[in-house]
Amino acid sequence: MNFYGQRVLFLGAHPDDIELGIGGTVAVLANAGVRVVMAIVSVPAEYEVRSAEASDSAAILGCELRILLEGGCKRIEDLKNYQLVGLLDELVEQSRPAAVLTHGPTDFHHDHVTVYHATVAAQRITQFDLYSYVPTMTRPVPVPFAPNAYVDISSTMDTKLQAIAAHKSQFYSRGLAFEYYRDLARVSGRMVGVDYAEALAVDKIVFA
Amino acid sequence: MNFYGQRVLFLGAHPDDIELGIGGTVAVLANAGVRVVMAIVSVPAEYEVRSAEASDSAAILGCELRILLEGGCKRIEDLKNYQLVGLLDELVEQSRPAAVLTHGPTDFHHDHVTVYHATVAAQRITQFDLYSYVPTMTRPVPVPFAPNAYVDISSTMDTKLQAIAAHKSQFYSRGLAFEYYRDLARVSGRMVGVDYAEALAVDKIVFA
Amino acid sequence: MNFYGQRVLFLGAHPDDIELGIGGTVAVLANAGVRVVMAIVSVPAEYEVRSAEASDSAAILGCELRILLEGGCKRIEDLKNYQLVGLLDELVEQSRPAAVLTHGPTDFHHDHVTVYHATVAAQRITQFDLYSYVPTMTRPVPVPFAPNAYVDISSTMDTKLQAIAAHKSQFYSRGLAFEYYRDLARVSGRMVGVDYAEALAVDKIVFA
Amino acid sequence: MNFYGQRVLFLGAHPDDIELGIGGTVAVLANAGVRVVMAIVSVPAEYEVRSAEASDSAAILGCELRILLEGGCKRIEDLKNYQLVGLLDELVEQSRPAAVLTHGPTDFHHDHVTVYHATVAAQRITQFDLYSYVPTMTRPVPVPFAPNAYVDISSTMDTKLQAIAAHKSQFYSRGLAFEYYRDLARVSGRMVGVDYAEALAVDKIVFA
Amino acid sequence: MNFYGQRVLFLGAHPDDIELGIGGTVAVLANAGVRVVMAIVSVPAEYEVRSAEASDSAAILGCELRILLEGGCKRIEDLKNYQLVGLLDELVEQSRPAAVLTHGPTDFHHDHVTVYHATVAAQRITQFDLYSYVPTMTRPVPVPFAPNAYVDISSTMDTKLQAIAAHKSQFYSRGLAFEYYRDLARVSGRMVGVDYAEALAVDKIVFA
Amino acid sequence: MNFYGQRVLFLGAHPDDIELGIGGTVAVLANAGVRVVMAIVSVPAEYEVRSAEASDSAAILGCELRILLEGGCKRIEDLKNYQLVGLLDELVEQSRPAAVLTHGPTDFHHDHVTVYHATVAAQRITQFDLYSYVPTMTRPVPVPFAPNAYVDISSTMDTKLQAIAAHKSQFYSRGLAFEYYRDLARVSGRMVGVDYAEALAVDKIVFA
Repeated sequence: MNFYGQRVLFLGAHPDDIELGIGGTVAVLANAGVRVVMAIVSVPAEYEVRSAEASDSAAILGCELRILLEGGCKRIEDLKNYQLVGLLDELVEQSRPAAVLTHGPTDFHHDHVTVYHATVAAQRITQFDLYSYVPTMTRPVPVPFAPNAYVDISSTMDTKLQAIAAHKSQFYSRGLAFEYYRDLARVSGRMVGVDYAEALAVDKIVFA
Repeated sequence: MNFYGQRVLFLGAHPDDIELGIGGTVAVLANAGVRVVMAIVSVPAEYEVRSAEASDSAAILGCELRILLEGGCKRIEDLKNYQLVGLLDELVEQSRPAAVLTHGPTDFHHDHVTVYHATVAAQRITQFDLYSYVPTMTRPVPVPFAPNAYVDISSTMDTKLQAIAAHKSQFYSRGLAFEYYRDLARVSGRMVGVDYAEALAVDKIVFA
Repeated sequence: MNFYGQRVLFLGAHPDDIELGIGGTVAVLANAGVRVVMAIVSVPAEYEVRSAEASDSAAILGCELRILLEGGCKRIEDLKNYQLVGLLDELVEQSRPAAVLTHGPTDFHHDHVTVYHATVAAQRITQFDLYSYVPTMTRPVPVPFAPNAYVDISSTMDTKLQAIAAHKSQFYSRGLAFEYYRDLARVSGRMVGVDYAEALAVDKIVFA
Repeated sequence: MNFYGQRVLFLGAHPDDIELGIGGTVAVLANAGVRVVMAIVSVPAEYEVRSAEASDSAAILGCELRILLEGGCKRIEDLKNYQLVGLLDELVEQSRPAAVLTHGPTDFHHDHVTVYHATVAAQRITQFDLYSYVPTMTRPVPVPFAPNAYVDISSTMDTKLQAIAAHKSQFYSRGLAFEYYRDLARVSGRMVGVDYAEALAVDKIVFA
Repeated sequence: MNFYGQRVLFLGAHPDDIELGIGGTVAVLANAGVRVVMAIVSVPAEYEVRSAEASDSAAILGCELRILLEGGCKRIEDLKNYQLVGLLDELVEQSRPAAVLTHGPTDFHHDHVTVYHATVAAQRITQFDLYSYVPTMTRPVPVPFAPNAYVDISSTMDTKLQAIAAHKSQFYSRGLAFEYYRDLARVSGRMVGVDYAEALAVDKIVFA
Repeated sequence: MNFYGQRVLFLGAHPDDIELGIGGTVAVLANAGVRVVMAIVSVPAEYEVRSAEASDSAAILGCELRILLEGGCKRIEDLKNYQLVGLLDELVEQSRPAAVLTHGPTDFHHDHVTVYHATVAAQRITQFDLYSYVPTMTRPVPVPFAPNAYVDISSTMDTKLQAIAAHKSQFYSRGLAFEYYRDLARVSGRMVGVDYAEALAVDKIVFA
């Protein structure tokens, strides 16, 4: 992912999705001089707490944070689909990302799948490479995911876990563990000969 | 898998395949009073060494060992497909297994896929439940696998690794690691709320 | 399906879905000492008539009936998806089912697919085995369905048809036939060597 | 497609979808004495302009035009799914088409996919052959499409492009090109040995 | 299937495959004035008996019989794949069929799948419509099959069963039943509103 | 594809496969300072003529040519699969490619699919990115292909066609056309906003 000096957009339905799914890659790109934007579509509950946590996490990862439905708690389902597509159209129109990394179509969360399909549609507006990251969840639900791209995150594994941990209201008060994501990264990494990796499914890459 | 007193057949193309893919389940069933048969189709090289290792492994797992193409090094590709199906037909005819667990169709090794398809065909002869285990390999090749069944192997995780280690000619002389299989079992386990699990894809189950 | 003394949840979008798709298995499990709950999400029309028919059917099958959106006609589409997930979260939280059998993702009815996906999401709350039954319909629409599990319903074939027939407002006044479901069960049964079977697709099984 | 004297229904979410995806086949059938209906579900913007353009296009193609949500701008998402299914149920009930050609399930536009699924459901009402045409778009978004039927449109290639061009507000004011559709038809045609073809995916054909 | 006066080729790996999978359609087309050829690739055992039975069956169905590897028992696996493709290339070169109906890719029999793929390749030589029929077997093995075309065989259901019965060495001496195929045809038929139907998967249709 | 100074391996079953499927990308990379190897597995007929043509083509594309089964006409099917895997193991062991581009699994030609699977297996030996190019053919057979990566070949479109044309014995004596490949590149290109593109399916990419 040679995007030095370009903008790369990470898109997640809610706070902590990006960190769980692809936080190591966020940090890898940020460290490599890419202009990384972490865009969260909505904060469904506890707006102040959760947006502050997201802000802390963005600082840890070294990226810019954007909350698309900002200013208060909102639910993605309260948007019509064409409104969500409009929101993403505007985002890619303005930010002209070289690549977008977002949820995938096999995720079990309705909002995640909705965001994925809206992102696919936003390709109408500009050309960008598109990747889906693993289904993200705080409690386990096995869903199929067939990755075909891997990012070596050996240098940012700990940063990723710190960024997840910044979401204190999720992973401390609710007693959820996230060691799973270290194990998953180790398994993905061994598959491609590195210590830790994040797995992706390629939707579209253009070599120009 | 309530097969107490019944026979369950684990089928692998070569020595160590069963241990890598599904060895924990072998031990779980053996411990539960199931009559477990570990059937290896062929030994492609070093027959004496590798069949002795397989025998050691079977002792560790507590199951019966059978080598289908016994008596010397043979390759599955040197059989016509109808010969391989005939071999498996005979095996299931004689052993009448309640279930068979073998390789799956997305494995990257030609012999593994061949054994899978021949096992599917052997259902003509008798009714048995059929499961595929994860693609097995000593060096990593990412291939898709979408499990929908899980066996809790928390009680046999160490036994599985000992059985793999019994294949000394593979995992010591060749410098291969198999810690990957512990990590994979932990990731699979967390997905279903246990410490360690082996993942399977269901081909056919009959509840009678 | 060895669920003696445990609770198993059958979930259908509307009255008669469960009977058409999986009624024979309901009766098999009820006869085997399983605590079977037949849960209908909503009654879209003729609430009194249809809930009385569902009650008659539950008596025939020997199971408990629950209507989730009870008290009057309601449509699943009038719920937001997170509300439906919340409803199912609560149901599995309270009833702690060992297994849930519901619609599948290839069904052509929008509500059926919605209920399926919400059930997948409810796995966040508790661990349960998850199966999808055949697409159900009163008038034929061919849709793909690839079963990999079969329940022998030879002993309850007639009970299933009686339970379907209890939905008098559907199958008598509207002139619809349901002999199709006997034929389908015979074809499924022959595939696995029994007289009559219901076919299922496995989403998740845990052998613990 | 031997539908002489019968009615064939082309169904598109919005104006110009049918022309882009399957306009050549509309003209081929119209020329062959089939009673062709081009049914547009909704006009989301500029009702007067766009319905006039659709009318011009229908005249070029030689078919009847129907706008299902007529009389003003409406959005498909503002219908509940059961309302959309009801609308299509009524349409096929009245028009008794021998075949329906509509969007497919892999299209990236939310409305297109919704119309596809509602059409599948409308098969409950009457028997008709069902085909999906290629994903249609005015700006490119690569999406998978696996055709298995082809219509030779060599005789109507130019008519198709004229019908697309009749949508002046789209293809002139907005600077969009549609030469892509000629190139695509040439590539599809070469695949089956004709000059130009439109590609379809078969959902259901009945040879009676 | 309007192939009046044209040639249609039914292709099966071995004697009785065509009758089991698509025999009703053979008879429907033969009755409708199509020049039907039933081509069997090989007779693996009992050449005299089985080719005589195939001949009796062809007489019942009203079609021409060809045995491609004629003159004695031969196995498809004893051909290299390029030899099999060459054999089919020659067959379609000479007979110029308007359509070919053969096994499908999900069949569990190795020879059936091989014949399918060789037929796909033979499209290099001439254009023909291509369909796959259901997996055929004399003893049940559940395999996935997703049909999207149906032929009404209500008028030839009995003829089909007679043609199967002509294979006396299979269905009498070996005690195999074939009533399954009547049940399957009834289930397929109900799905499309006729008494009996055979189901097909479309590989390629050209409407020219 | 930033492989400056690294080696990239293009692999095709027979002469002209690489040019047809991915010749534009060969030239793009060669022009960009990548060490490109075009490796042909076998020459099945006319060894002298066809290897001279391949040599001419390699000169046009600016890459190194290797014929794996060199010295005379050989057929891939005359190798056991393990022999083919061994051949490719050795090739990647020696050449340590950063990426390999070869046939894909949906190709209709038996040898192409065999080469694809053997290349997947060769990932055991070294890590390399793996891509599949479009099914290649000199006479059309429609097969599914779902690309998710595109290479802009606008600057090498003509070079690609010249390289194809260098295979004089194929495209002149046999009267075959290859303008199809220009049309296909234009359609692929328009999908991603360039004049001409070659489409690929990603098997594995590692961003390290």
